Amino acid sequence: MRTPQQYKESLRRMRPNVYKFGELIKDVTTHPATRSTVEGHAQIYRASLDPQTQDIFTKTSSLTGERISRYLSLIESADDMLANSRMKRAVFNMTGTCTGGRCVGWNSINAMWATTYDMDASLKTDYHGRLRDWLARKQEEDITLCGALTDPKGDRSLSACEQPDPDSNLHIVKTTDAGVTVRGAKVMIAGAVAANELFVLPGTRYSDKERDYAISFVVPRDAEGITVVEARRPSDSREMEEGFDIPVKKGGITQGYIFFEDLFVPKDRVFMCGEAEYTVKGVMNFISPYRAAIGGCVAGQGDVMIGAAALVARANGLSEKGFSDKLVQMAVNNETTFAVGIGAAYLGNKHPSGVWFPDTLTANVNKVHVAQLPYETKRLAQEIAGGIAETGCMPSSKDLSDPKLGALIKKYLKARSDAETRMRAARLVEWLTVGAGIPGCMHGGGSPDGARMLIRQSIDFERLVRMAARLAEIENAPDEPKKKK
Amino acid sequence: MRTPQQYKESLRRMRPNVYKFGELIKDVTTHPATRSTVEGHAQIYRASLDPQTQDIFTKTSSLTGERISRYLSLIESADDMLANSRMKRAVFNMTGTCTGGRCVGWNSINAMWATTYDMDASLKTDYHGRLRDWLARKQEEDITLCGALTDPKGDRSLSACEQPDPDSNLHIVKTTDAGVTVRGAKVMIAGAVAANELFVLPGTRYSDKERDYAISFVVPRDAEGITVVEARRPSDSREMEEGFDIPVKKGGITQGYIFFEDLFVPKDRVFMCGEAEYTVKGVMNFISPYRAAIGGCVAGQGDVMIGAAALVARANGLSEKGFSDKLVQMAVNNETTFAVGIGAAYLGNKHPSGVWFPDTLTANVNKVHVAQLPYETKRLAQEIAGGIAETGCMPSSKDLSDPKLGALIKKYLKARSDAETRMRAARLVEWLTVGAGIPGCMHGGGSPDGARMLIRQSIDFERLVRMAARLAEIENAPDEPKKKK
Amino acid sequence: MRTPQQYKESLRRMRPNVYKFGELIKDVTTHPATRSTVEGHAQIYRASLDPQTQDIFTKTSSLTGERISRYLSLIESADDMLANSRMKRAVFNMTGTCTGGRCVGWNSINAMWATTYDMDASLKTDYHGRLRDWLARKQEEDITLCGALTDPKGDRSLSACEQPDPDSNLHIVKTTDAGVTVRGAKVMIAGAVAANELFVLPGTRYSDKERDYAISFVVPRDAEGITVVEARRPSDSREMEEGFDIPVKKGGITQGYIFFEDLFVPKDRVFMCGEAEYTVKGVMNFISPYRAAIGGCVAGQGDVMIGAAALVARANGLSEKGFSDKLVQMAVNNETTFAVGIGAAYLGNKHPSGVWFPDTLTANVNKVHVAQLPYETKRLAQEIAGGIAETGCMPSSKDLSDPKLGALIKKYLKARSDAETRMRAARLVEWLTVGAGIPGCMHGGGSPDGARMLIRQSIDFERLVRMAARLAEIENAPDEPKKKK
Amino acid sequence: MRTPQQYKESLRRMRPNVYKFGELIKDVTTHPATRSTVEGHAQIYRASLDPQTQDIFTKTSSLTGERISRYLSLIESADDMLANSRMKRAVFNMTGTCTGGRCVGWNSINAMWATTYDMDASLKTDYHGRLRDWLARKQEEDITLCGALTDPKGDRSLSACEQPDPDSNLHIVKTTDAGVTVRGAKVMIAGAVAANELFVLPGTRYSDKERDYAISFVVPRDAEGITVVEARRPSDSREMEEGFDIPVKKGGITQGYIFFEDLFVPKDRVFMCGEAEYTVKGVMNFISPYRAAIGGCVAGQGDVMIGAAALVARANGLSEKGFSDKLVQMAVNNETTFAVGIGAAYLGNKHPSGVWFPDTLTANVNKVHVAQLPYETKRLAQEIAGGIAETGCMPSSKDLSDPKLGALIKKYLKARSDAETRMRAARLVEWLTVGAGIPGCMHGGGSPDGARMLIRQSIDFERLVRMAARLAEIENAPDEPKKKK
Repeated sequence: MRTPQQYKESLRRMRPNVYKFGELIKDVTTHPATRSTVEGHAQIYRASLDPQTQDIFTKTSSLTGERISRYLSLIESADDMLANSRMKRAVFNMTGTCTGGRCVGWNSINAMWATTYDMDASLKTDYHGRLRDWLARKQEEDITLCGALTDPKGDRSLSACEQPDPDSNLHIVKTTDAGVTVRGAKVMIAGAVAANELFVLPGTRYSDKERDYAISFVVPRDAEGITVVEARRPSDSREMEEGFDIPVKKGGITQGYIFFEDLFVPKDRVFMCGEAEYTVKGVMNFISPYRAAIGGCVAGQGDVMIGAAALVARANGLSEKGFSDKLVQMAVNNETTFAVGIGAAYLGNKHPSGVWFPDTLTANVNKVHVAQLPYETKRLAQEIAGGIAETGCMPSSKDLSDPKLGALIKKYLKARSDAETRMRAARLVEWLTVGAGIPGCMHGGGSPDGARMLIRQSIDFERLVRMAARLAEIENAPDEPKKKK
Repeated sequence: MRTPQQYKESLRRMRPNVYKFGELIKDVTTHPATRSTVEGHAQIYRASLDPQTQDIFTKTSSLTGERISRYLSLIESADDMLANSRMKRAVFNMTGTCTGGRCVGWNSINAMWATTYDMDASLKTDYHGRLRDWLARKQEEDITLCGALTDPKGDRSLSACEQPDPDSNLHIVKTTDAGVTVRGAKVMIAGAVAANELFVLPGTRYSDKERDYAISFVVPRDAEGITVVEARRPSDSREMEEGFDIPVKKGGITQGYIFFEDLFVPKDRVFMCGEAEYTVKGVMNFISPYRAAIGGCVAGQGDVMIGAAALVARANGLSEKGFSDKLVQMAVNNETTFAVGIGAAYLGNKHPSGVWFPDTLTANVNKVHVAQLPYETKRLAQEIAGGIAETGCMPSSKDLSDPKLGALIKKYLKARSDAETRMRAARLVEWLTVGAGIPGCMHGGGSPDGARMLIRQSIDFERLVRMAARLAEIENAPDEPKKKK
Repeated sequence: MRTPQQYKESLRRMRPNVYKFGELIKDVTTHPATRSTVEGHAQIYRASLDPQTQDIFTKTSSLTGERISRYLSLIESADDMLANSRMKRAVFNMTGTCTGGRCVGWNSINAMWATTYDMDASLKTDYHGRLRDWLARKQEEDITLCGALTDPKGDRSLSACEQPDPDSNLHIVKTTDAGVTVRGAKVMIAGAVAANELFVLPGTRYSDKERDYAISFVVPRDAEGITVVEARRPSDSREMEEGFDIPVKKGGITQGYIFFEDLFVPKDRVFMCGEAEYTVKGVMNFISPYRAAIGGCVAGQGDVMIGAAALVARANGLSEKGFSDKLVQMAVNNETTFAVGIGAAYLGNKHPSGVWFPDTLTANVNKVHVAQLPYETKRLAQEIAGGIAETGCMPSSKDLSDPKLGALIKKYLKARSDAETRMRAARLVEWLTVGAGIPGCMHGGGSPDGARMLIRQSIDFERLVRMAARLAEIENAPDEPKKKK
Repeated sequence: MRTPQQYKESLRRMRPNVYKFGELIKDVTTHPATRSTVEGHAQIYRASLDPQTQDIFTKTSSLTGERISRYLSLIESADDMLANSRMKRAVFNMTGTCTGGRCVGWNSINAMWATTYDMDASLKTDYHGRLRDWLARKQEEDITLCGALTDPKGDRSLSACEQPDPDSNLHIVKTTDAGVTVRGAKVMIAGAVAANELFVLPGTRYSDKERDYAISFVVPRDAEGITVVEARRPSDSREMEEGFDIPVKKGGITQGYIFFEDLFVPKDRVFMCGEAEYTVKGVMNFISPYRAAIGGCVAGQGDVMIGAAALVARANGLSEKGFSDKLVQMAVNNETTFAVGIGAAYLGNKHPSGVWFPDTLTANVNKVHVAQLPYETKRLAQEIAGGIAETGCMPSSKDLSDPKLGALIKKYLKARSDAETRMRAARLVEWLTVGAGIPGCMHGGGSPDGARMLIRQSIDFERLVRMAARLAEIENAPDEPKKKK
């Protein structure tokens, strides 16, 4: 398995194709806009080699029998799903935020593992074997793989084939014996800059008229035809500065717009190509593990919020005792998203292809929580940490370094702790709640209204109405009326 | 295993010692104050014999190798805990409410199974063997066993040994070679009227000065020295009437005050007798499985609330579509308490005695949810069902039977369904939300503030503060101040 | 002005036409099913004469210049609306619950005062003068007047004129020079048993095809052709018993179904007769003062809940300090519904007829709160008061009176207070949260979804979108799309 | 009254004493770090002259009889408080955020108006006359006045006189006949850069031993001895850039740290000087109008959030219909904080000095809401606006200007609206929810826990307990126990 250094070296060897603020980034491992996220991903390599954390971060491959990164493994049991949630929580604990260049890719592998299995069984295609070959190879190379679902989509009131610009969703331009040429974009892709390869799968269900949009493949992130433009995020200019106004260096988020300008993908890297009827399966296979495990992510960041809020309180001279109810509520929120994810894992079942899918209903319930509970946790962190942290309301790191201004700041920001300790702690709360550390947990992996729709579809109303009617000894339970009025 | 009829017969053979409204109840299986809860318990016997539900309700005994009621089994794995939650949800689905005469007793067996194991190992006592012998016998007899923890407690500002009346907590009056004599009471005991035997264990931690309060045993519910006075519950007088103003006959709650007036308990039925230092273990062993699985209970009643609310809406002529957001929120609440319980089960661990304990932190998080989410679910059920169901705002069943008044009611309460269907459906919502069907889920198994205290104790603040400090590169993280101001 | 005795005497003089449990109630002032609500209403007469409370409960009539009951007054200013909220809060404080026989009637007077004014102005009718004459007379007689809007409505998916039974909404059967004959029912009418007269107005907007449903009038509650059947409410059978299981005697709710079997109404008591286009005005004029002031009602009951919860806690031996956060939240809920109502009053405006209408948007916002906040307050009251109060989990008052059982109960229910004090306090919490004291505040005065619809209509999206576009310097702000997908 | 140009000119004439990022700002009206907030304040001058808005923004002075800015007026009635809330809502509507350089100063005038009146009456001082003279002069000059309460405070577990550094709270260093010399700081002061003068008052109650901390005065913001260092806020570096990544130019926040290095204040500008027993009055007089009216602020920003969220949805091609429930909830939140403030105003009373104070309890209830409801509104805005707005997840304005990258972005970010419109709209949501537009509404004007403490003190438990006891006919209501256990 790779060392952090080998990982970074692999990134340095890649063709520069990432832009931010209109400029090409030559070396993602050192450029201030990307180095924190690379550092976050590097820590995963470190943790995979560390005997203390190795069991969380690695697994024996069922393909090769070798120890591999869990992020390149097949999820084959409820225990593997539990490990998924635990690993994500651990990574948020280590980096303070999302290292998105791994989990979406991992999820994509597993989603397409089952989908290609079913396609091959029904359609006599050979996608599953292609995926198996590629995966065994990459487990050995120990790459970082990011994943990409979300298309630009254009006007939301129109379906893919109705868009004025047919490129609004990624699609096949040409198919030959050698492979396939695609055009379009995938947007808001986390961790692409830290990834060696990029796993693409359909972002939504496509109809028979939209077969060209049914496309899944994997490519090197620096393949010819791919351009990445990084999105800007809250307070991200601070990453370009010295000092500690970005308080965390061991982790960071990037979210890129990936443009595919007639990219050619060789056949053995293509896992779906026109089978529109399987797009919904691919998406659903992606959704349930993702929405179950994201509860671990937000719990992991919630852990940091408890610690950060308590840190500011202590630096201010206040005891946690005065904030007991708030801290308990933060813990309840953390353990809820974590535990609902574990529950979904345990209530899941094994697909014939060997991968384990958590329970869909429970996973979607967790998505609803993930779009609400962390927001309450953030608010409570700000409430505990006080005005200094609410909007990061302090002079800049640069002011602190100024001889005259710095002396005033040191004198007046000192509380129970010295000024710099207080400032770093408060900047951490700011970073977590209204700064560059905010992950896109509300819409990442799909929007909560999408989850609510799936929940609604999961409720078997007829069963519940009959149950109620039986209890109340009602013989002619009314059926669902067609609402007229 | 017993049939429902054999079960009822066993109750009829018992000494009448249950009172309500100042009167002795001769036969609990037919008296209107108790027959519904007996009927609810009888359904468990039916379901245990029904091939369709047998797997949920029964298990192979690890003591005898025979098929036994799950309610008399040892919980030996996460799967057994999952089955616990599923069974409870199923019972609420079948009866509409709590059949409390089984789960507390079952939980008591398992809590004391581990506690007696530890006591014997450390203190060289022989409690575990006594419990094993009794349990093997009762698994074969297939009894219904209720459990009793809560003491009257007297003035809450005083501990047991400081109370003006030493009987405020159940205690040992005399110990002989043959057994032990106890005095005191256990209060708010669910399902005692439907139980053959009664499992008693300490309701709180006792100190060394309070050794006489460290007492656990099991006795027939009708033993000499035991008197049960049933508590009255919302709208319970309706149970004494004809008609359908109590809409559910297949289930019902009782909560009794059990008085022990110098009850003698033979030695082989005593499982703790003075070992005050083990009372906290007994209580903690009880708490975690109970608080995990209660999420299944409230989810099961929440299922009925969805069905009942939809039933009224349909009867009124309204489609579920207009209530979609509310129904989804109800489902989210149900699946949350259910799934957090499953998560707690899966995150648990095995005690050396062989029983499985869910994760304490997660179980207590669920107790907090159980004291909140079902209340939102009830409110939503009332909101969907409309004014007719909010407070059961309709004439009585008796008025419907009156020739003159009945004609008016039938004419004017008819909507999309006939008047009686609408009335039964609305009465069901009333019964579930402000009527005799409300279980004591907030304080049953301990109050939510107790759970919050345990959650607070579970948060490793020092770890979280260090984690935050490391991320923000703070070298001298402040320790917890002693708050002065 | 009347004394309480004169008021009760006036009720005794009326023709008995109220039924409950299939039986005719001879004297509503003494019958156990109705005496508590009569007693609650009698307290209003007492308070109107009491110099300490007279300013809240009375006002100088702008019609006669005499001191009159505020409940028969015109609401002519924001100050009058403030007095409305304060009086309702005071009445809930005095009686513990809703004395519904006054506020709906009062609201009806004011709604029709403005509506008849507009009708006369446009249609040259003489309704306003009729109402003025009747009102001046009744102010002098100092009657209790209840109000009735809600029709049975039949199948909710059909409008009034589409119902299979045309009587599903109250309608005109015949019109002559002398008056009008009506048939139908009004349902869930609070306080009808305590009222001398009954004010009827349309419950919804009617179309031109439904002119016969546009009817408003006032009649003696005991007029020939009127029959009242009382709805049963949670735990209402206890009202038929001795003892204190219904802990409150000074107040109580009744909600009746009023059947109009070809009732003849003389012309001078008719205030709308076929003018379908004014029904929506009548309803809207009713809604805004009602939904503003109901915040005072629930605040007043919330005050009692704080007191009752604290009372049980003290009786248990616990200090309020441990419940500080919960008690503050209860107070926040109370003051919110109260203050939003006051805000609505202050933001209101004067109708040309002289009556003052609170702001519609703010009043409807309060209706949404009234359907949520009191439910949280109830839950918190139960949480503070403990298991004994959650479902009223204690033996009955009758058991306490039993010599043998009573001794046991007295011994074991004693805490810091004696058993009876504790029991009465806990019964009060039960009565308020899951008992006969629950008012129908969720659907009374219209359902929260109706309020939400009015709020949605009040949001001027175009203005807000333009405001946002201006701020973001967007020139071509998109208009609202017609959603296709 | 001043024109916007005259106002800006007045700022340009001031001594530069404001720093940010270690550099002195020469001209606050043009420097990118301060020009937006100056522009926001300038709009108030524009609105004060505009006939359409003049009635909201100006008032006839009760001192001079001239038309003056409402921000320099005495608040003399509930109507003036209502105008306060309306004006604040209007300013947030115009600028998108807080123009803090006016309301705190205005509030300070009114708080000290009453406090100096009481001081003079009791202590025979002449502070009130000094304040009156200064105020009459400044009303004529039409200055912008900011206010400053919050001291650095040092270690929160120590009181002012116990701090290791006595300067941790602003204090008197020397008093002479000519005036007073002070040292210390005031921190997180909104709008100081846009202000002509600065009103200082005590930030907390001081004891008799802390008389040197009891100090109130007003000075020009650029007086010798004053240095301002601006705090950095979320995404504030973007303000230093071209383009629209800060989407709003018409408003913006600054929050400064103001250092007083032996500042001399002439006697006629001093309004408290050592009268420690009046500090609590000064603070309380500040709190109630501030906490009442802040509900207007957050409602005004909430209006913009509704508009911004709807704008993105439309640009995406989605109809508001799909978000109806969320938009209604946002409106409920807005109208609640607004209306509770109006309620507090109406329930207030007049101080003998002539100023009107809103009801303290209701105002503090609103502070609790202001620390919660806007956070839900933000979350809902992000939920409606989608992933593009959640964290501003789009390439930068600079990328859009790049010829090659810009073409890709324009193609793929186009939806129903063109790319730039969508980006501006999404940036607005980002700016409002996690960007530079976030006002410090949680801790500004004091923390919610402080408000909760005042609410708790406002609850008359004894009255409520007696009320409950009377209802339940309890004769010996228990008093509050001293909790032992």
